[in-house]
Amino acid sequence: MQTGILYGVGVGPGDPELMTLKACRLIRENEVIALPGKVPVDTVAYKIAVQAEPSLAEKTLIPIYFPMTMDLAEQQRCHEAGAATAEEYLKQGKNVIFLTLGDPTIYSTFSYIQHIVEDHGYTTALVSGITSFCAAAARVNRSLTEWNEPLHVIPARQNLDHSLNAPGTYVLMKSGSKMNQVKKLLAESGREVAMVENCGMPEEHVYYSTEEIPDDAGYYSLIIAKEKRS
Amino acid sequence: MQTGILYGVGVGPGDPELMTLKACRLIRENEVIALPGKVPVDTVAYKIAVQAEPSLAEKTLIPIYFPMTMDLAEQQRCHEAGAATAEEYLKQGKNVIFLTLGDPTIYSTFSYIQHIVEDHGYTTALVSGITSFCAAAARVNRSLTEWNEPLHVIPARQNLDHSLNAPGTYVLMKSGSKMNQVKKLLAESGREVAMVENCGMPEEHVYYSTEEIPDDAGYYSLIIAKEKRS
Repeated sequence: MQTGILYGVGVGPGDPELMTLKACRLIRENEVIALPGKVPVDTVAYKIAVQAEPSLAEKTLIPIYFPMTMDLAEQQRCHEAGAATAEEYLKQGKNVIFLTLGDPTIYSTFSYIQHIVEDHGYTTALVSGITSFCAAAARVNRSLTEWNEPLHVIPARQNLDHSLNAPGTYVLMKSGSKMNQVKKLLAESGREVAMVENCGMPEEHVYYSTEEIPDDAGYYSLIIAKEKRS
Repeated sequence: MQTGILYGVGVGPGDPELMTLKACRLIRENEVIALPGKVPVDTVAYKIAVQAEPSLAEKTLIPIYFPMTMDLAEQQRCHEAGAATAEEYLKQGKNVIFLTLGDPTIYSTFSYIQHIVEDHGYTTALVSGITSFCAAAARVNRSLTEWNEPLHVIPARQNLDHSLNAPGTYVLMKSGSKMNQVKKLLAESGREVAMVENCGMPEEHVYYSTEEIPDDAGYYSLIIAKEKRS
């Protein structure tokens, strides 16, 4: 029997209307949907997708859980277990649609599962979603980059010792945990700063300068730091 | 009378199924659609969007034309003329839905029109689209960034004198015009390279190494250069 395909499908940043037609169709046409969390219906990805594609509620929902841990061995165990869960269905010839926030190629936990499942000989595929940084820029109604400006996307786990002094725009992802240090860097950079917390979610909040940003900003905080226009 | 709103709406990179539900709804619910080109029905944005949302064919289609010129005064004239075209409808209280390839915050010509129209006191809004680099990464079935890797997006107009030696992944946009120089840099960088030409279009082509990339690659070429996994 032919095995199924594991799809990593982006559901975008929060607003159900920012899901793609393809994401909705894949949910509609397949039976098995994987969600990143312990309880599928409690995941953010589920809550977004079910609003855009109500048939999701009738599907076989499987939880694939990744605890937030810095213990690499524990991470690896969880990724292996997640892959094994998906493979049970792939073996039966069923596709598995793994729904992931934002886009599946940008800091997605799906990547880890994908590597393992591919190593085991299964076929995988990716379906793009709207990234959090594009949505945040749209929310503050500003471009991220124009003309010859580079764009630098820096995740929270990256060392921020350098001083944001390359040309172009910086996007700082999920900086909540070290906001004090980040605010200092931003102030020194002289850049135009905007921050969106929980973009597209009911608890969304927007800040239009470094000074406005609270030291205890949430995990899902995204900062856009542009060069000042001369 | 209340004036209309100018919307910059991303239609994604080529595949009509990568349009968002919101882009389709805005086309459906509004009468005036602006397309970037001399003849609206000949534009790439139109050809993508009409497949996802056939009602587009019945709309009032307005051309907003930007010639590819390096003459900044000529550019400015064209942007002013484009803004004036949109404002004729905004004044009448009609929204204008400007369809743009990819995402409207990433190297979009919409940004120029938006600045002018805002300076004239009108309201604008942005609706995210799938970026070409996310779609290209999905096409080659690889992540762009994982864990603590930064992402650097470098447009063709940016000077490429430096040697792609920052940590993380580089995306080189529209590098077609100086492919010789770019291939040399890529080879020296020792990075894992993939290139997608015309992603999501019928004439799409994928290359999986620097050596495979032809010197005369097309304008819509997107290169992903990742650090080699140890």
